[in-house]
Amino acid sequence: MTQLIGKRSWAIPEGYIPAESTGDDPALESHETVCVLNTTDEDANLEITVYFPDREPVGPYEKSVPASRTRHFRFDAFEEPEPIPRGEPYASTVQSDVPVVCQHTRLDSRQAENALLSTIAFPDG
Amino acid sequence: MTQLIGKRSWAIPEGYIPAESTGDDPALESHETVCVLNTTDEDANLEITVYFPDREPVGPYEKSVPASRTRHFRFDAFEEPEPIPRGEPYASTVQSDVPVVCQHTRLDSRQAENALLSTIAFPDG
Amino acid sequence: MTQLIGKRSWAIPEGYIPAESTGDDPALESHETVCVLNTTDEDANLEITVYFPDREPVGPYEKSVPASRTRHFRFDAFEEPEPIPRGEPYASTVQSDVPVVCQHTRLDSRQAENALLSTIAFPDG
Amino acid sequence: MTQLIGKRSWAIPEGYIPAESTGDDPALESHETVCVLNTTDEDANLEITVYFPDREPVGPYEKSVPASRTRHFRFDAFEEPEPIPRGEPYASTVQSDVPVVCQHTRLDSRQAENALLSTIAFPDG
Repeated sequence: MTQLIGKRSWAIPEGYIPAESTGDDPALESHETVCVLNTTDEDANLEITVYFPDREPVGPYEKSVPASRTRHFRFDAFEEPEPIPRGEPYASTVQSDVPVVCQHTRLDSRQAENALLSTIAFPDG
Repeated sequence: MTQLIGKRSWAIPEGYIPAESTGDDPALESHETVCVLNTTDEDANLEITVYFPDREPVGPYEKSVPASRTRHFRFDAFEEPEPIPRGEPYASTVQSDVPVVCQHTRLDSRQAENALLSTIAFPDG
Repeated sequence: MTQLIGKRSWAIPEGYIPAESTGDDPALESHETVCVLNTTDEDANLEITVYFPDREPVGPYEKSVPASRTRHFRFDAFEEPEPIPRGEPYASTVQSDVPVVCQHTRLDSRQAENALLSTIAFPDG
Repeated sequence: MTQLIGKRSWAIPEGYIPAESTGDDPALESHETVCVLNTTDEDANLEITVYFPDREPVGPYEKSVPASRTRHFRFDAFEEPEPIPRGEPYASTVQSDVPVVCQHTRLDSRQAENALLSTIAFPDG
């Protein structure tokens, strides 16, 4: 029913996980996500690379999105090869072995009321 | 006066209808929309498919946008084939039989003050 | 110094000027803008068309952006051929006789604290 | 591991650094950034040009992003050839000698609670 849609390579130049949050609800903790949609009938194997201002990139963070599924990955939950520090700028790329679509979102709850940003990531390939 | 503009296939990887809202005004209830613009002189027949992290996609949700009109569809108002649950991640695709343009917006009113996000959806085809 | 950059046709499916605002500062009144950048050495003559859910499109709203200038047009300041009603969904297209770049932004000040959204418009042509 | 991704020319039509901020934390001062990701193995030399509604463009502001690094540039920190005034509309272009990816973000802290906007810039070349 749905056409195949997407690209194999994506970039997100903006990255920043605020160090502070307000309240105890994990869904309202300050965080950033990359939302990945896989409309194909094959599982997508992702390699996410994280870039910094003054040191070598870290990665790949290996993730997967099953066929006909979406996964919303929180950058603050990344553990292997190492966590992403809060309060520091970073950027990221996503490489997939099948076409996917990526969107970047931040919830900033440093203050009593939340702020949100979102954009489709930059596609290539 | 206006040139034909748009694509027949669109994807929105980010989807999340907050479970809570503040206040009684329906316009300020937490919601997500896909705004569709049809600049052609033919009615656009849309098939929207909704994807989830751990179960089969649901759809098509059938919508239409008359020639030279715009329609802003609220995901929380989708009923057939089934409502979209609040508080759970999802993603969506839009297929149209004529070229259209799609934009994704969320109003989050979980707290006293609103937050907004928006992006042009990812086009293909 | 700067390369020519842009397209002649743009679409913004999301449009909504909140009916209410908080406070007296005109810069903080709820509004939407289309920001247009003209990097060429010729003046850009724009025709903006506004689309609605249930009636004929209105336009063209005629605007211009001088060579090597940017102009940020507030939709709530449009007067000819007619003002855009607050509190109702709309969409818009921008046609230019030279390449330009368009970005859509909303400031929502219905509540005490503002919310913002922005996206590059959808290009064509 | 990562494929080369990006373009050499980018435009950001929306620009506005709010004149006011709330609080003393520099990270929460109202500001705009252009986030630049350089995935290549060569340093990126950038020329940023700033456009205004009613006067000649200013630039180039010369910036660099080392190979395999990201840099998030705050427009309110630009000094040479001249600072960008707060409270006035502007726009910008970024020219790079190697492919990069650019994203535009604003933090508005004029009021007690922040608002955020972000979008991938418009690519060309």
